Amino acid sequence: MKVGTITEVKNSEHRVGLTPDCARNYASHGHSIYVQSGAGAGAGFSDEDYQEAGATILASAKEVCDTAEMIVKVKEPVESEFSLFHEGQIIFTYLHLAANESLTKHLLDKKINSVAYETIRQDNQLPCLRPMSEIAGRLSVQEGAKYLEKPFGGRGVLLGGVPGVNPGKVTIIGAGIAGANALKIAVGMGADVTILDINNQRLAYLDDMYGNRIKTLYSTPHNLEQAALESDLIIGAVS
Amino acid sequence: MKVGTITEVKNSEHRVGLTPDCARNYASHGHSIYVQSGAGAGAGFSDEDYQEAGATILASAKEVCDTAEMIVKVKEPVESEFSLFHEGQIIFTYLHLAANESLTKHLLDKKINSVAYETIRQDNQLPCLRPMSEIAGRLSVQEGAKYLEKPFGGRGVLLGGVPGVNPGKVTIIGAGIAGANALKIAVGMGADVTILDINNQRLAYLDDMYGNRIKTLYSTPHNLEQAALESDLIIGAVS
Amino acid sequence: MKVGTITEVKNSEHRVGLTPDCARNYASHGHSIYVQSGAGAGAGFSDEDYQEAGATILASAKEVCDTAEMIVKVKEPVESEFSLFHEGQIIFTYLHLAANESLTKHLLDKKINSVAYETIRQDNQLPCLRPMSEIAGRLSVQEGAKYLEKPFGGRGVLLGGVPGVNPGKVTIIGAGIAGANALKIAVGMGADVTILDINNQRLAYLDDMYGNRIKTLYSTPHNLEQAALESDLIIGAVS
Amino acid sequence: MKVGTITEVKNSEHRVGLTPDCARNYASHGHSIYVQSGAGAGAGFSDEDYQEAGATILASAKEVCDTAEMIVKVKEPVESEFSLFHEGQIIFTYLHLAANESLTKHLLDKKINSVAYETIRQDNQLPCLRPMSEIAGRLSVQEGAKYLEKPFGGRGVLLGGVPGVNPGKVTIIGAGIAGANALKIAVGMGADVTILDINNQRLAYLDDMYGNRIKTLYSTPHNLEQAALESDLIIGAVS
Amino acid sequence: MKVGTITEVKNSEHRVGLTPDCARNYASHGHSIYVQSGAGAGAGFSDEDYQEAGATILASAKEVCDTAEMIVKVKEPVESEFSLFHEGQIIFTYLHLAANESLTKHLLDKKINSVAYETIRQDNQLPCLRPMSEIAGRLSVQEGAKYLEKPFGGRGVLLGGVPGVNPGKVTIIGAGIAGANALKIAVGMGADVTILDINNQRLAYLDDMYGNRIKTLYSTPHNLEQAALESDLIIGAVS
Amino acid sequence: MKVGTITEVKNSEHRVGLTPDCARNYASHGHSIYVQSGAGAGAGFSDEDYQEAGATILASAKEVCDTAEMIVKVKEPVESEFSLFHEGQIIFTYLHLAANESLTKHLLDKKINSVAYETIRQDNQLPCLRPMSEIAGRLSVQEGAKYLEKPFGGRGVLLGGVPGVNPGKVTIIGAGIAGANALKIAVGMGADVTILDINNQRLAYLDDMYGNRIKTLYSTPHNLEQAALESDLIIGAVS
Repeated sequence: MKVGTITEVKNSEHRVGLTPDCARNYASHGHSIYVQSGAGAGAGFSDEDYQEAGATILASAKEVCDTAEMIVKVKEPVESEFSLFHEGQIIFTYLHLAANESLTKHLLDKKINSVAYETIRQDNQLPCLRPMSEIAGRLSVQEGAKYLEKPFGGRGVLLGGVPGVNPGKVTIIGAGIAGANALKIAVGMGADVTILDINNQRLAYLDDMYGNRIKTLYSTPHNLEQAALESDLIIGAVS
Repeated sequence: MKVGTITEVKNSEHRVGLTPDCARNYASHGHSIYVQSGAGAGAGFSDEDYQEAGATILASAKEVCDTAEMIVKVKEPVESEFSLFHEGQIIFTYLHLAANESLTKHLLDKKINSVAYETIRQDNQLPCLRPMSEIAGRLSVQEGAKYLEKPFGGRGVLLGGVPGVNPGKVTIIGAGIAGANALKIAVGMGADVTILDINNQRLAYLDDMYGNRIKTLYSTPHNLEQAALESDLIIGAVS
Repeated sequence: MKVGTITEVKNSEHRVGLTPDCARNYASHGHSIYVQSGAGAGAGFSDEDYQEAGATILASAKEVCDTAEMIVKVKEPVESEFSLFHEGQIIFTYLHLAANESLTKHLLDKKINSVAYETIRQDNQLPCLRPMSEIAGRLSVQEGAKYLEKPFGGRGVLLGGVPGVNPGKVTIIGAGIAGANALKIAVGMGADVTILDINNQRLAYLDDMYGNRIKTLYSTPHNLEQAALESDLIIGAVS
Repeated sequence: MKVGTITEVKNSEHRVGLTPDCARNYASHGHSIYVQSGAGAGAGFSDEDYQEAGATILASAKEVCDTAEMIVKVKEPVESEFSLFHEGQIIFTYLHLAANESLTKHLLDKKINSVAYETIRQDNQLPCLRPMSEIAGRLSVQEGAKYLEKPFGGRGVLLGGVPGVNPGKVTIIGAGIAGANALKIAVGMGADVTILDINNQRLAYLDDMYGNRIKTLYSTPHNLEQAALESDLIIGAVS
Repeated sequence: MKVGTITEVKNSEHRVGLTPDCARNYASHGHSIYVQSGAGAGAGFSDEDYQEAGATILASAKEVCDTAEMIVKVKEPVESEFSLFHEGQIIFTYLHLAANESLTKHLLDKKINSVAYETIRQDNQLPCLRPMSEIAGRLSVQEGAKYLEKPFGGRGVLLGGVPGVNPGKVTIIGAGIAGANALKIAVGMGADVTILDINNQRLAYLDDMYGNRIKTLYSTPHNLEQAALESDLIIGAVS
Repeated sequence: MKVGTITEVKNSEHRVGLTPDCARNYASHGHSIYVQSGAGAGAGFSDEDYQEAGATILASAKEVCDTAEMIVKVKEPVESEFSLFHEGQIIFTYLHLAANESLTKHLLDKKINSVAYETIRQDNQLPCLRPMSEIAGRLSVQEGAKYLEKPFGGRGVLLGGVPGVNPGKVTIIGAGIAGANALKIAVGMGADVTILDINNQRLAYLDDMYGNRIKTLYSTPHNLEQAALESDLIIGAVS
């Protein structure tokens, strides 16, 4: 199959649908790969990296989309990209159609075969959403720590404290993948962390993993309120 | 040398100055060992255990003390034992003379060579006090947990909580040997533990060992008050 | 719906079917809550706590049961409570009917809609039994430690030993929820723990979690006998 | 003694020489405390907090310095503060005189009794420098993590990676207090950390504490070069 | 039922189908056990051990097979054993028939009821294969460590290094049961370990268990190549 | 200074006195380095590696020793090397003179300035002996594990066991540097380890580090005998 990837155009989106490593993997299974020149730049990959992986570099998104039978992207197409895709083409990307009526209509009208990463299931899991939740969870605490610093408008709280000084208190609401990954970093930075969920079995797993490095709390209005009031940082991670 | 041990007579004192293993050790270095019949019973050792270790069993404390040049005991002699010891004899035991004028006077008058375990120093440590502090520290939390149970008059708090329920709060005042051993068991039982001391270097060591399984707090009146007010269990371990 | 809770009358039963936090939760979903005066006392909740949560306090169990459509309790009704409940009423409590023919007959005769906590399943788990097993498992080791103390008739064994002295040996039979929670506290108190089960996958999970802080043993008559003979404390936790 | 504290005037210096808790501690030993109005604001303490602790609030730094026999500050006096202090007065603060000839001359000329925190020794340690090193070490990794983010000019590296993706590499040069505290947070954030020092005993201690969560490396030019070249983040912590 | 076990005849096969403990277990359920004399010798069990467990010792494999209705073995029958088994008899052993046409034909022709351990499923697991994979995984690293020693032809690499010296690098391909058990020992020996798999959920579990004691890597051709090139030891554990 | 290193001639000695990294370090401080051709081969360093580090390669040990003022070696000189060294030359190597009268005499007679690594003290430590003890300790368990394998004459014991099967028992006599490093690997390989010493403070440190992953035992004849009798592997590490 002819597989292509184009430069993401959304603001602050540095990722790319196909890494050179993926390209090589496709190519080794007999597929032809087409990459828009510069598509990997935001993620640190040069056109040469793709060429070494066996891909053909094309000058524009239009050329890639006219050539490839399947387009692998990161984010949903924006208005300016609508005209790129043609009937029968496969688009493989995050779509989040529930929140986007115009895109949904467009894909249906143009009869584009759209596969949304966020809906792919394997063993009752969402393998394409998991890494996004992992990154979001881990990054959330790093961001929170930053906004507790004085120069970023915070109260000057160091999450881990130092010996002899109480650590900062972090409350994580939701013990799913994002919450558990936030937990990992919050614990690692030395914070006094409480995590709440309504799934007791999940809390028991985290209690197994972390013991008294964390506090697990069944999520009731009262418990939530208590934990939130005492917190320096609250992470919302209800999935 | 002739070494002897006699039955401890203080209430609730089940220990014995010489275990059969110690007796064997002395015997292997050429000493003669004399043990009052039944001296080891409280600690689970029979007269036969001592005989196998090479000791001679004598019927009474008086016979042992008349025979042996050094008496190895656990606790300081009580009034009823004063007459047992004779001039020039060595007594090796915990003495705590600061609190016991009559015993001090008696030992001086009778010219008994008294060696107090609690004063023996090695490498700037007190090797005979250390295990007592270790036991006291570890046992203290077990005792505290018991008195938090309803049948023992407590509020029905389980130190470790369960997943979804907050653990009990333990405050340990003093991070010396007793305090650090109390800490170990309190952490192990799943409590939310705060330990206070005025030695920041010691707190840093515990922070290295336990990370965010504990909270270390510099001991100021304010910090002590805060920690104590929130606690289910307070362990006093200032050394 | 009108939801009520009454004072537990079984000996040593200090719990209450509805905490103020639960009451608030029900109320926030539009239900009316009726609480027998003093029902929460054993668990540390005052009538005022319930009133603040939006509940109405009634003087007697009879008044609550005459008013409420659903009664939330802890333990199964005893003979003296049989007359409280009426046809069509919902009772939500631990029932353990297998062992209680007279109660079973009564509930059938009176056509009371009885929901037993211990039979509720979610994701192939028993969410209302789990916390009971967790508490039982964690408390079991604390109780065992107590009965190893001399004053409680034990041999004077400290589960965790101290540096230089062997710890006590604990054998846990069954690696289900109760067993795994007993394990957690036994390990935490420093004991030398062996846990047996016939489910090798479960043992592998515990081996992952605890590594060589524990010994896992496939449960055969021989292994059981060996482990038991060497133990200071045996915890039966076959589920 | 009359003890006073004044508002720090250096840019970005939010700390205060005396917290209300310290003030209370001094007061409880019979000293009189004088605090410049607003001195604690940057650190989150109000004048009322100090008054409750027993301190007297004065309007200006001059009034405090004219009244108090000892001034407790944070940073060394700047030119504009020189005139505040008088002969015989004690100044207790970080001074770092080696780098500041004009201040040194001034203190000598005016015969001010100056005690520099950074020179106080106890048990061969520097107890007033330790917490500064701890904070600097812990904060350094948090800052480094921030500058690896795309919006702060970094390559978009998440220190801890996620499962399936390599973590970022951190090299810490120096395993003293600052280095060891940087290590703690770098490990906690999930990075692949190498720490170098020329003190093998210190590296062995860290190897004991962290095992294969870290790599310890004897600091030679070659090892330094190798580690540095592979790093996403380098922390300089030679003490 | 009459159950028997015979001496394994394959080279280097020291195991035995029935241990005395298993024999006792069968006997306690009312079965009769027949054991070829010497069958347990390789595994450290004497004929007396079996007799104490209630088994009858017979002189030859032929006698056992003529008597017993079910034969419990370890390895698949080799040519010389084909004649031992008779129609209707049950054979319970590892069979691996896919690779062994002559054995398959023989078992079908003779109508022997053959149960292969490796095909038994319980809760979607293979309980008889699991321990084999566990042993293979754990032993693999021990063997690898040996072949890195100079006397065994290696480069003289000590997997764990020492403080100040980089550890050896181990790459484990496959994070199933064998891979995870290899991981456990490689981590324990102090190596710098990378484990690859295409199952991100499995990698996330290992990341939960080991944190930054390991590196998890999604298995792509590129990642495999990178990890392999840098390794001192590669463990193949794709299941 | 002119510094040289020569090929080690003792059997199985693959090490070299100066690595290229050390050579570079000396060179950067202005010294001249002379290396016998092939001296680094056993340790994996080529003559080119040394040349890149700034060293001069000489053909024979004699040429190096005639040129250099200081010779850096690994092992003590053997008879055949005696004639290489001349009066006033510095030899820097492990010497172990206590066991070697002829070497001692020779060095005195020839007035060679001999510095023995094993006698260098820094902060009351032996920095040149420490890494040797670390390596010996870590390797000892790896060797022991090998000799427990059937093909090496052992009983077929896997130190770590597998879930459901008891691990092997290891007794380590002596908790100094070698013993503590043996401990680390024995624990890592999953063994059931007991370590004995007469230094209770050292045992307490190990108890802090390992908790109930190990058993610490005060070393008495009785304890030693008990531990040894139950062991699969005994490591002698008395320093």
